[in-house]
Amino acid sequence: MVIVMATDAGTAEVEAVVDRVTAAGGEAFVSRGVSRVIIGLVGDVDRFETLNLAGLRGVQSVTRISAKYKLVSREHHPERSTVYVRGVPIGPDTVTLIAGPCAVETPEQTLAAARMAQAAGATLLRGGAFKPRTSPYAFQGLGELGLRILADVRAETGLPVVTEVVAADDVEMVAGYADMLQVGTRNMQNFGLLQAVGEAGKPVLLKRGMSATIEEWLMAAEYIAQRGNLDIVLCERGIRTFETATRNTLDISAVPVVQGLSHLPVMIDPSHSGGRRDLVLPLSRAAIAIGADGVLVDVHPQPEQAKCDGPQALVAADLSRLAKELDALTGVVGRQASTWWNRPLLAG
Amino acid sequence: MVIVMATDAGTAEVEAVVDRVTAAGGEAFVSRGVSRVIIGLVGDVDRFETLNLAGLRGVQSVTRISAKYKLVSREHHPERSTVYVRGVPIGPDTVTLIAGPCAVETPEQTLAAARMAQAAGATLLRGGAFKPRTSPYAFQGLGELGLRILADVRAETGLPVVTEVVAADDVEMVAGYADMLQVGTRNMQNFGLLQAVGEAGKPVLLKRGMSATIEEWLMAAEYIAQRGNLDIVLCERGIRTFETATRNTLDISAVPVVQGLSHLPVMIDPSHSGGRRDLVLPLSRAAIAIGADGVLVDVHPQPEQAKCDGPQALVAADLSRLAKELDALTGVVGRQASTWWNRPLLAG
Amino acid sequence: MVIVMATDAGTAEVEAVVDRVTAAGGEAFVSRGVSRVIIGLVGDVDRFETLNLAGLRGVQSVTRISAKYKLVSREHHPERSTVYVRGVPIGPDTVTLIAGPCAVETPEQTLAAARMAQAAGATLLRGGAFKPRTSPYAFQGLGELGLRILADVRAETGLPVVTEVVAADDVEMVAGYADMLQVGTRNMQNFGLLQAVGEAGKPVLLKRGMSATIEEWLMAAEYIAQRGNLDIVLCERGIRTFETATRNTLDISAVPVVQGLSHLPVMIDPSHSGGRRDLVLPLSRAAIAIGADGVLVDVHPQPEQAKCDGPQALVAADLSRLAKELDALTGVVGRQASTWWNRPLLAG
Amino acid sequence: MVIVMATDAGTAEVEAVVDRVTAAGGEAFVSRGVSRVIIGLVGDVDRFETLNLAGLRGVQSVTRISAKYKLVSREHHPERSTVYVRGVPIGPDTVTLIAGPCAVETPEQTLAAARMAQAAGATLLRGGAFKPRTSPYAFQGLGELGLRILADVRAETGLPVVTEVVAADDVEMVAGYADMLQVGTRNMQNFGLLQAVGEAGKPVLLKRGMSATIEEWLMAAEYIAQRGNLDIVLCERGIRTFETATRNTLDISAVPVVQGLSHLPVMIDPSHSGGRRDLVLPLSRAAIAIGADGVLVDVHPQPEQAKCDGPQALVAADLSRLAKELDALTGVVGRQASTWWNRPLLAG
Repeated sequence: MVIVMATDAGTAEVEAVVDRVTAAGGEAFVSRGVSRVIIGLVGDVDRFETLNLAGLRGVQSVTRISAKYKLVSREHHPERSTVYVRGVPIGPDTVTLIAGPCAVETPEQTLAAARMAQAAGATLLRGGAFKPRTSPYAFQGLGELGLRILADVRAETGLPVVTEVVAADDVEMVAGYADMLQVGTRNMQNFGLLQAVGEAGKPVLLKRGMSATIEEWLMAAEYIAQRGNLDIVLCERGIRTFETATRNTLDISAVPVVQGLSHLPVMIDPSHSGGRRDLVLPLSRAAIAIGADGVLVDVHPQPEQAKCDGPQALVAADLSRLAKELDALTGVVGRQASTWWNRPLLAG
Repeated sequence: MVIVMATDAGTAEVEAVVDRVTAAGGEAFVSRGVSRVIIGLVGDVDRFETLNLAGLRGVQSVTRISAKYKLVSREHHPERSTVYVRGVPIGPDTVTLIAGPCAVETPEQTLAAARMAQAAGATLLRGGAFKPRTSPYAFQGLGELGLRILADVRAETGLPVVTEVVAADDVEMVAGYADMLQVGTRNMQNFGLLQAVGEAGKPVLLKRGMSATIEEWLMAAEYIAQRGNLDIVLCERGIRTFETATRNTLDISAVPVVQGLSHLPVMIDPSHSGGRRDLVLPLSRAAIAIGADGVLVDVHPQPEQAKCDGPQALVAADLSRLAKELDALTGVVGRQASTWWNRPLLAG
Repeated sequence: MVIVMATDAGTAEVEAVVDRVTAAGGEAFVSRGVSRVIIGLVGDVDRFETLNLAGLRGVQSVTRISAKYKLVSREHHPERSTVYVRGVPIGPDTVTLIAGPCAVETPEQTLAAARMAQAAGATLLRGGAFKPRTSPYAFQGLGELGLRILADVRAETGLPVVTEVVAADDVEMVAGYADMLQVGTRNMQNFGLLQAVGEAGKPVLLKRGMSATIEEWLMAAEYIAQRGNLDIVLCERGIRTFETATRNTLDISAVPVVQGLSHLPVMIDPSHSGGRRDLVLPLSRAAIAIGADGVLVDVHPQPEQAKCDGPQALVAADLSRLAKELDALTGVVGRQASTWWNRPLLAG
Repeated sequence: MVIVMATDAGTAEVEAVVDRVTAAGGEAFVSRGVSRVIIGLVGDVDRFETLNLAGLRGVQSVTRISAKYKLVSREHHPERSTVYVRGVPIGPDTVTLIAGPCAVETPEQTLAAARMAQAAGATLLRGGAFKPRTSPYAFQGLGELGLRILADVRAETGLPVVTEVVAADDVEMVAGYADMLQVGTRNMQNFGLLQAVGEAGKPVLLKRGMSATIEEWLMAAEYIAQRGNLDIVLCERGIRTFETATRNTLDISAVPVVQGLSHLPVMIDPSHSGGRRDLVLPLSRAAIAIGADGVLVDVHPQPEQAKCDGPQALVAADLSRLAKELDALTGVVGRQASTWWNRPLLAG
């Protein structure tokens, strides 16, 4: 931890900082410059955090040097992790395709989308039964009925199910149907929800908040990890900027940055990033080439009838092109598609 | 609603749009330009929203003209509203000062902060018992114990209590202690929580999400209003931008913009906007001058001991200066301080 | 300057930093923490900047503590400055109103706008003869003809003229007509232009770049100051964010922040910030209340005929209301209007 | 063009719009909705732009439907273009690597960097002689001396030279040395400079402004094209967002978006986007995979001695890895490296 004193801070103020740090068992190294003093702290940083040093008179800034997250960091866990969802791996050796409808609407639509997804090599089925919508007048999802449809489609296709949960209260119920729990962008800092999914005994897909820094995102993952669940997959889905040509701006750099800071797998959601069908393929190629551990895409048998995000959903022709392109790239980046992993399930 | 067709859209595609609209009981006016066609729709816009026109082949964009929110809009309720919190008004005729500690830490600290607040003219006491914190290792608040402290301080000072609730589950319990429920910036799109506070029978202070557009903020208010609660006060607290000199960038323009769109009162939180004690006074002056219906500030008897946001908390000397400055400005903008409103309570 | 080493940096890498710093005449204080090393540097920071310490192996970050600008900083010039434009003061004791048409179109329109401005208490006339426009197909201004119109209107009204210059080449010519040179938002980092206006012998109005940090803005001012011109007035005109309800987001906090860092006067442009006529008055009130040294507004005798930014131009009725409101606020913040300053000129 | 009237606009105000449009030779189609009127305009949109319809009473918004740029748009030139720089192609069939030092410092350093670049397959040499720097105290480049060094290195290696020009005045002189003129991010809206390079008779590399929208970027290109020069290559180099882990946020989606709107080639600068050496390779892979027409990277024989941006410069080992990875990807996306194109020059 580094403390920078204000230019007009006097000796008494510097001593007050040093005293408080040493009283807490730390060491404080004082460097006096021409116009101001810098104090380097050595010791238990979390203890220092509780000392409220920033509130002391004469302190201009307090900068923490070591990462604020531990369980999810590579400092504490240097090897990159693989998370298994009913046997399907997401991690550094594979490229995993998760696909499905934005919202579960009917059994027929969901099954058709799942078949399309599977034909294209998807090994996990996504589908929303609880939809957090900006407008209270928009379709909010089928709720538990939607979960039952997903479970039926899993029985039919063998595809494990990834679905969003939006309230801490619902976690147990949703976990009864789902194979992986998704926490959406609007709930990335819904800390009660994070803690609840941390205790649910299922892998978690944690989307980045649309205006969250990478540090905040990893701190959100730390909330889940703290409750004993390290089966977390991070998913970048675009951040909010001034650009209006795309719904959000995909922060592709987040993939290598996060992989450097954390051992958790990182996926990309090209559908929500761009909000446009024609961008899903190019963004998916970029995702795989940069080293993402997979992509998560919206598909729909009839996008023009979709109750949610139809303009970004892929149709069958797009999907087969996506499959072919991902296949070509997967080899180039030295990975395997995770396609064959769902065979045993299919057989069962 | 206006539909812009792609340049290469043909007659059949235009007709498909027209047919779908007229089948739904609407009218479609087609304007053929040199390079493309524009279709103006007249009828029930919410019905049109369900038609998924954006998903039709050849449609380039669909723009909604009328507001997506109703209950909170001025189109449906032209007069600006006043919300009463245990008799204390927040609205167009008054300037209301809400003050208190960021977090409730001890009975003594809370009472001291309340006394400071009251001496400066505050008519409502804020204080957090549930603190949503970015880090799982930071102080998360005292929970229900904190609420009991707030209730005791209210009994002692007569100041009604504003406090944050972070989970739908807790709403009933928190509403048992609080006079006004605060929904924080990280929960602005926690729709289950919005619905729960909409049913709790208490006024709500709804902070703007740190990267929410004004439209999204008003839609979040609509979620509360839809459950029958129109006693909503909006609070701007800074948005996220590239500037790093301040914690957030106070969007002061949001005050007149929102007052033009919605009848709900709008306050400013200068403490969280800037994150710096020295900015609280100037930002408060700007808030009152532009026509905000009040300000919400952090105070602490000993900021250097504060467990949360000490660097932005005002001390007694700041507060008396704030009181004096607000007093001078309140007259200039043709309003009254809401100070005297809590006298009956104090007497009781 | 503070250097944070990577967690895996070894002794040799720390020594390489220390050696380079001491070889350059500085001192390096090494603090060894549990997981990494921090090095505090004391000495000539500008010298350290040339050492490229960030490029050394094992260095994670290099943070400069002292300000990068000198001539414009309050560290080197604690008293706030007043800049005089042909005798009209802009500074801490006054509130200066600069008004005029966005673009000079005709002699009649310019004179009418100037009369409106003057009647409302404006002491300086703004008007653009060179208009930097996003589109090459938009009206680009009248050029030197426009400058001659401005000079004629000055002769008629006594109002000194503020006008934009967009190319280093034009500075001498424009300075032959203008009393104050404006550098616009798109040219804030046109360093050749900054240097040219620094040598032109006229006061400069430097607008903030639409995505410039406050530090970058002050560095741009330093470019001007370095050429010997300290008669610089800074003007905040809104920054670019995700919000679309306003053309830009006025960063009102920039006023006290900049006044704390720099001795230069700071004005607000409420017309370009919001891009909407109805926001000009409320934003102006906020500007004066927070302590801005003046405001700069667009006026037009017939906004519906304006060739540029008509929707934000004030008309006569708005202006008289603005004058009245600024008058009331100017006293509250303990300043004088600079109105009477142009009397001698008018008399002359 | 679509005009949306305010809810309280009356018949007279609608008629005023219609009259002005028809007087200008256009047609206006009026659609009356329940709460407001929409007017669709058909005719000469550029003519309509001059009518200042937004300034008319009762008009809420005016939306232009057709693109504001013409010469650079695909509407007017459907085939994607290839730009040749002394015979080296940049366009849809190739992947072009431009590499070199951020700043030209010495003949030795520049030649060494050029050799490194060439060994890795670069076919164009970049290097800055004029450096626009945020601080007036930072190294500003060698000026014309630097250009002579670049010319010597070209004679030695055969690599055509890409170099930045920062002032309209310098264009002729710089064009005397350079094979391609670069306009940097801070000058994207320096319209005088754009016009000057438009007349210089050399291909132009136009970097995106760090906070420019895609539309503004294409309008800047239109300024160049309007002066008769269509040999423009666009270069995305990261935009400014709230994220601080990277210097800028690479907007990778801009590649397919721009390629859809414009026929001009689009490259990526992964060095300035991330500002970190470790991100250059992954970002380059993403660039090629998404379909960028090339990448532009910083290299330096001794980054720890670099006078500018050392932390992001590649060294020899990085470059050979980059070459190998680009090679693998270039085939996958169905393109050729442009490597062999400079053979004739080398031979010459």
